[in-house]
Amino acid sequence: MGRRNTETVTIKDISQACGVSISTVSNVLNGKTGKVSATMAKKILDEVERTGYRPNYLAKNLRATSTKTIGVIAEDLIVFSSPAIIEGVMDCCEEQGYNIVIENMRLFGRWHGKWLHDDKLFYSALSPVLSKMDSMNVDGILYVGGHEHTVDQLKSASDLPIVMAYSTSTDKKIPSFRLDDVQGGFDAVTYLVSKGHRKIGIIAGDYDNVHTVNRIAGVQKAMFEAGILFDPGLVIYGEWTKDSGYRGMKDLREKGVTAVFCMSDAIAAGAYQYLFEIGAKPGKDISVMGFDNQEIAGLLTPDVTTMALPLEKIGHDAVAKLIEMIEDPEKREMEVGQTDIRIPSMLIERNSVASL
Amino acid sequence: MGRRNTETVTIKDISQACGVSISTVSNVLNGKTGKVSATMAKKILDEVERTGYRPNYLAKNLRATSTKTIGVIAEDLIVFSSPAIIEGVMDCCEEQGYNIVIENMRLFGRWHGKWLHDDKLFYSALSPVLSKMDSMNVDGILYVGGHEHTVDQLKSASDLPIVMAYSTSTDKKIPSFRLDDVQGGFDAVTYLVSKGHRKIGIIAGDYDNVHTVNRIAGVQKAMFEAGILFDPGLVIYGEWTKDSGYRGMKDLREKGVTAVFCMSDAIAAGAYQYLFEIGAKPGKDISVMGFDNQEIAGLLTPDVTTMALPLEKIGHDAVAKLIEMIEDPEKREMEVGQTDIRIPSMLIERNSVASL
Repeated sequence: MGRRNTETVTIKDISQACGVSISTVSNVLNGKTGKVSATMAKKILDEVERTGYRPNYLAKNLRATSTKTIGVIAEDLIVFSSPAIIEGVMDCCEEQGYNIVIENMRLFGRWHGKWLHDDKLFYSALSPVLSKMDSMNVDGILYVGGHEHTVDQLKSASDLPIVMAYSTSTDKKIPSFRLDDVQGGFDAVTYLVSKGHRKIGIIAGDYDNVHTVNRIAGVQKAMFEAGILFDPGLVIYGEWTKDSGYRGMKDLREKGVTAVFCMSDAIAAGAYQYLFEIGAKPGKDISVMGFDNQEIAGLLTPDVTTMALPLEKIGHDAVAKLIEMIEDPEKREMEVGQTDIRIPSMLIERNSVASL
Repeated sequence: MGRRNTETVTIKDISQACGVSISTVSNVLNGKTGKVSATMAKKILDEVERTGYRPNYLAKNLRATSTKTIGVIAEDLIVFSSPAIIEGVMDCCEEQGYNIVIENMRLFGRWHGKWLHDDKLFYSALSPVLSKMDSMNVDGILYVGGHEHTVDQLKSASDLPIVMAYSTSTDKKIPSFRLDDVQGGFDAVTYLVSKGHRKIGIIAGDYDNVHTVNRIAGVQKAMFEAGILFDPGLVIYGEWTKDSGYRGMKDLREKGVTAVFCMSDAIAAGAYQYLFEIGAKPGKDISVMGFDNQEIAGLLTPDVTTMALPLEKIGHDAVAKLIEMIEDPEKREMEVGQTDIRIPSMLIERNSVASL
């Protein structure tokens, strides 16, 4: 081997030549000489001078070149919300001249909901994908949740900026763009009240699900403002399914409600099923409101008045924030409280709610 | 500069040393000496011998290392079929130790159906994505159509193997994995016949759509085998929408059919709407069959008997073929006729078809 160019001398070369660890060399170069003998410190500095080694301080804070690429980590593309979020992401990236690469963890497809309660399973999918993002030289990472939950240990080894869409992180400095479920529940019930309903039943999702909890908070706020007593007996918890809607509607019908707020369009489909069975007409004999604005809401008869999830906007705004952080490192340090952005749902008025 | 290692001598070095073009050197090395003087040919060959230059014949036919990565080009992730196809792709890739990278062209999201009749628009999306696949060093390309159509000029500059899922190519040597729509139409009508129906109406998609044409061919075959006269007056062409189903059902009801085969679940949703309006019950007063097995089919009341699209299998089998072509170059040359693979749909029996 010929003589080496000074530009190719590495910190490893210095450490080997002096018979010390890399961190010892690093400490000496950073002035932390407390644990190193004066003789060794001098030996290290002499070797640095002799070889012309220069520590690459710049690389620590700023990568040399931007690849203009965003890495998107999706929990699962097969969840209905993911393609719409990614559509919003790509729309913004196209405007701003960024490419994206998508990594699909397939969490639901492979394990259904099991990974939510099994950290080992979850990180067995997340860790390789995070490493891949680092090796692919992306400029930043956008994490796309399959539904709203809190992710721990979301870190990039090379300190890439990260933004969450439709989920949040235990690290409160990572910005997250989520649904404003309190507003969604509030607007849904306020709409039913505006149509004259006061005895309103709720068919909710799982009792401890964060979407359920926040929408119920919105429901309570709307009822408070309308001067309606909140009756916990008119809230039926269950799952997000047609079956659950069927059972909830049966129960609430017996309790004499005039309108039902279903927390998903699939739940509304189950409420319809029960009403058909007893010969009642949704939107005439009893009012039914959905949530999500999935395709089904427009296909049921009568078509369902519902709250449209702002999925494209969540994707668009989340990646716009990420690009801001990429292009201006000063914007990376945000204060807790500025990082939890909630995007409102929008009322889609159709034919399933009658005026009283 | 020190003495160069023979391994790093390039054809450019030879051409410069001899004062000729690269193609002249290439011609001499390939025995095409017709246009080169004998003196120059000798000079070139002497220089090749002196430097130890060896042309890299191998690189022409085989890339040095596999990246174990499949490049997926999706026409649009927002089309309902795409995530399910990609789920099948990833399932197979996981089994076989391959990664995937996804490029989303967003053809429908950006331009609706306009790109189908505007080649310039289409290639403005396809060309950069193909170049990107080459530069990313993928081992092969899987093209995922948003629905079935024929793609022209699908070529990789570096001659990567290509397989089509849910679409086909004008180049008949590129394998394509598509829906067996003839079988789908055949099985749907054969099922209705098995329930005693003989006066069967069809609510079809667009008249010249390839899915429509093939399903109608299957319908005719089923009627022929059952000895039922095919009455073109009972076939209503339209779109793939609820509105189209509503209009079709109205027309066919007046013509006295006992069962209707709808070519999509959304069409079936429209047929339901008309029946509800006149106070008739689907699956009781008149039988309704759908196609696709989208989520909606399970959410309508009564839930819709339909044909399930084999989307995951299309993705799985298409990428399995691609991996075979990557790992065994001899498998890349297929004969026309062996490359058009049709995957059957599966009957999902629910509650929208009554026995006569």
